[in-house]
Amino acid sequence: MLIIGEKINGMFKAVREAIQNKDKKIIQELAKKQIDAGADVLDVNVGPASTNPVEDMKWLITTIREVTDCPLAVDTTKKDVMDIGLELAGKNSFLNSISGEEEKISSMLPLAKKYNSRVIALTIDKSGIPAHSEGRLEIAANIVAKVIEYGIDVQNLYIDAVILPVNVAQQHALSVLETIKECKLLCDPPPKTILGLSNVSQGTQFRGLIDRTYLVMAISAGLDAAILNPLDKELMDSMITAELLLGKNIYCDSFLEAYRKK
Amino acid sequence: MLIIGEKINGMFKAVREAIQNKDKKIIQELAKKQIDAGADVLDVNVGPASTNPVEDMKWLITTIREVTDCPLAVDTTKKDVMDIGLELAGKNSFLNSISGEEEKISSMLPLAKKYNSRVIALTIDKSGIPAHSEGRLEIAANIVAKVIEYGIDVQNLYIDAVILPVNVAQQHALSVLETIKECKLLCDPPPKTILGLSNVSQGTQFRGLIDRTYLVMAISAGLDAAILNPLDKELMDSMITAELLLGKNIYCDSFLEAYRKK
Repeated sequence: MLIIGEKINGMFKAVREAIQNKDKKIIQELAKKQIDAGADVLDVNVGPASTNPVEDMKWLITTIREVTDCPLAVDTTKKDVMDIGLELAGKNSFLNSISGEEEKISSMLPLAKKYNSRVIALTIDKSGIPAHSEGRLEIAANIVAKVIEYGIDVQNLYIDAVILPVNVAQQHALSVLETIKECKLLCDPPPKTILGLSNVSQGTQFRGLIDRTYLVMAISAGLDAAILNPLDKELMDSMITAELLLGKNIYCDSFLEAYRKK
Repeated sequence: MLIIGEKINGMFKAVREAIQNKDKKIIQELAKKQIDAGADVLDVNVGPASTNPVEDMKWLITTIREVTDCPLAVDTTKKDVMDIGLELAGKNSFLNSISGEEEKISSMLPLAKKYNSRVIALTIDKSGIPAHSEGRLEIAANIVAKVIEYGIDVQNLYIDAVILPVNVAQQHALSVLETIKECKLLCDPPPKTILGLSNVSQGTQFRGLIDRTYLVMAISAGLDAAILNPLDKELMDSMITAELLLGKNIYCDSFLEAYRKK
């Protein structure tokens, strides 16, 4: 499974302060630690408090690029921030994210085409997030049609069914699992699926337990990628073990270590 | 989900010695501890080393019955041991187990009918355990037909798709998950499904991690019951959390504690 490390986000205090103080070391350490822990891609988000998001995104990406060529997921809702972010991030980047809303699609998809990026698309439209998988799939189907219309390969599209916190919207947890399964029936070849995992446990008392249990269920449902905290060792152990049990890696006695070394 | 506690089994040294020394306290403590930890049913097995299995089964069950009325799963391949076991165990017992082999069916199913027990049936026939879910389902379908023929309610039948250790038969892990899902399509109402969990991690280095990851995947696939070690707290936490995420219990902040108190 493709792991996108979530830690370089201005939502986190240490990252926000590092951006304000132009403290490269903190960002570069976070980049290296996540890659060492198994991240294939690094998410980059300046955070909601940024007063100069274009400059902050430029600084973050150039800072990360001093230590790694790892693909980046440029995480912003602003078109100008996305444009400079994808340009600086270079090849194999992710555009994170569009939704089913027409203005998001028409402003962002041309950038994905311009930079040949992979696209993360949330199953949200102007009415919000549907409670049932049927509604989420309908939005996903519309997004698939738009992606094809813009000349983007559907296999570069990652549908995020948008998990909500289990303490406020418990019934969504099952809907998202159903959406992950059924996305594979939308077209052939199908889009990929992705999950912004940590939202499921937001505001709960047992975040690690809920995150790793839900990740295992989502992997069982066919999930292709997740945005998560790769520094959570128990979470990564669960992910590696789930993939082992689905036969995606060959068993050996030290399968956890073997996965991490590959 | 229905939890059958696996600890009262002569395969374990402490139990074997307790049977030999007629040490009631060890058995009664194991019974109470498993129930306190969440077991709905207790498995009872005299173990392969028993030289007098009829007497040992009688002693085990009367010893347990001094402290609890908890339903028991009488776990033996011997007809005479099963007969006395089910008689002493009383109502809501499980016959553990039959398989798809004709001699097992014809010797054991009359006892299930006689004592009105629930029946655990392994998807094994004279050729062994099929590698693919199709073969397991074919055996399950034959067992369903036999159970109906013997006048036993299919809803009292628990199909065990027989998980093998992941270090020797890795591809079976996925086959068993597929079988759990597809058993629900065999008839209407369908049989229940059960898993003898700990076999999946036999001989591996990370038993707890493999057990709890596989249990979460099996619950996601629709598993109704499991034979497992309820004293493994992390395993039980994973089970409770998986059921929460499937909406089988209502969320509250202390959902682990709430489940255990119910």
